[in-house]
Order: sequence, then structure tokens, then C-alpha cells
Amino acid sequence: MTKTLDITPLTAADFAPFGEVIEMAGAQHFPINQGTTERFHDLARLDLNGVGGKAIISIFETQPRPMPIKLDLMERHPLGSQAFYPLQDRDWLIVVAGGPDPVDIDAPDNIKAFRASGQQGVNYARNVWHHPLLVLDSNSQFLIVDRKGPGNNLEEISFTQDIFLSVT
Amino acid sequence: MTKTLDITPLTAADFAPFGEVIEMAGAQHFPINQGTTERFHDLARLDLNGVGGKAIISIFETQPRPMPIKLDLMERHPLGSQAFYPLQDRDWLIVVAGGPDPVDIDAPDNIKAFRASGQQGVNYARNVWHHPLLVLDSNSQFLIVDRKGPGNNLEEISFTQDIFLSVT
Repeated sequence: MTKTLDITPLTAADFAPFGEVIEMAGAQHFPINQGTTERFHDLARLDLNGVGGKAIISIFETQPRPMPIKLDLMERHPLGSQAFYPLQDRDWLIVVAGGPDPVDIDAPDNIKAFRASGQQGVNYARNVWHHPLLVLDSNSQFLIVDRKGPGNNLEEISFTQDIFLSVT
Repeated sequence: MTKTLDITPLTAADFAPFGEVIEMAGAQHFPINQGTTERFHDLARLDLNGVGGKAIISIFETQPRPMPIKLDLMERHPLGSQAFYPLQDRDWLIVVAGGPDPVDIDAPDNIKAFRASGQQGVNYARNVWHHPLLVLDSNSQFLIVDRKGPGNNLEEISFTQDIFLSVT
């Protein structure tokens, strides 16, 4: 069986079951640095300190997948959130499933696909199923804030049917 | 008395007394995501969990100062590190003083000025004196990872002499 998912523009409201959209639009902000800087403050619910964990900063450099994009598997992090912010002003793609509660992620109706702008990052909440990074341009870079610490913080599950993204 | 500081290119070695340069060059890295992504891993020594603190993500949008840039004051954060990464591939400026130990920051010889590329961020170590953001282009944006929590995490000190940057 084959299923093609539609992609909708990323919004904070639609993404709320999965975590937060990291963006200036709609954020609390205030001037600092003698008025030369505007601080858009505390944009994600980082959840990184459980089970002896701590926040780390990394950079991911990612290549596009062949078109049409076939979704092979999803992953989740049971011990911490994971935040991504793009380092180029180019659209990228996000695929999530279910939310924090158990869900049949192999049912296409439970999978949501979003197109983010280059001024939108996301923070996946702990235990939210998400597809590995999906980009449209070569050598796309992201700043990542995720967890370092003891314990197994990665689970993966493969799809048993062919699920594609409709990128237009 | 007037002093003009020279600016040198930012390197990890020269910046080591003040914190870490966040960059792909020279970092440990390894493939993830079925080989589509290279992870440049754990690029800064985040120090955010003391005195009930936790990591937060913010975005700063900053305007250039008038040329020649006059340094008015320095600040430091006694309770946590502060990381900056540029969201545009444009050079920016960093001014630090002393290191983690007490120092006469009003002595120009104790002040170091660096020019960072748009692919270099920095993480100021706790208690390192640094100038507020200095950028060369309008509406320059940075992703910030710093501390939220109880206690006073900001100290400022003004220079008593006129110190300028020589931006060429």
C-alpha cells in the first residue's frame, strides 16, 4: 500500500501537540544592550536535565533525499527534547506523528507533515516521534540543542507501508 | 585618554581563555540519519544548571553601532555561560576582557577584540567580561543559548577612558 502525505505550512498552533515552533513571530520580546538589540526570549520548552542530562549545542549538516521523498522510519528521544534551528533562510520539512502519547505511527492519518520557513526552528518534545532532518537544499546546516547524559535516548521505528511526501 | 583596539581573526586557540568558538572546523563529527547528516557534536561547554538554572533558547536581533565603534561598557554573567551563533553568513565582532579571574578591564591591554566569520559562534564562559553584541549589518540575528533561573546573573562595568575599535 502506498500513501502520499500532504504538507502544510508550519504554525505554532498546528505544531503544539509535538513541541514548539522557534520563531520571532508571536514571541515575547524586549530591548537590551542599550537599545541596540531586541531579545526574543525563551522560545522553546527545553527538557534536557532529567536522568543526569544536560544541554549541548551541535551543528548538523544535511543533504536532501531523492525525490519523491520516501519516509523510511521515525525516531524519538525518551529522555529529552531536541531543538533545530536553520542556519540558512531556506524552507525545510518536518514530519511528526502522534504526540506524547502512544500512537500507531504506521497509520498515515496519524502523521503530520509541515513545511517550515528558514526563519522557523522547532523543538520536538520528549518522546515525540519525528522523521530525521528533511531538507530541500544541499549542505543545509542547523544548530541543534539536545541532551547529553546517561541512558538510551534514541528509539526508531520503521514504516511497513510506503509513505511519500508531496513536495510542490 | 583615547585608545583604539586592533581586531584579530577569531580562532579557538586565542579565544580559549574566554570560552569556546562554536564552529564546524576542527570539531568532532560523525554521520547520523542513515548517512544523510553529519553531526558536529557538543561544540561548547554549556554551564547553565547552577543555582537552579536551566538552558533556554532565544533570538537576538541587533543593529550596528555608529562608526567608529566606541566601547561603552562590558558585562558578565556570574551564574552561567552564554552562547551566540549567527543566523546570517556575515562577519561580526567580539570584545572580551581578562578571563575568568579578576582583572582590570579598564586597561586596554587586557581587552581583546576578534572578528568572527558568519560560520563562527562563541560561548562566553561564566564570569567572562564581554561587550554586548557588535554587528556590521542591520537586523543581524543570533541564536542564543543562555540561562534562566533565580539570582542576579548580570553585572556591568563602564570604561573610564575612550576605547574604540579599528574596523577595517
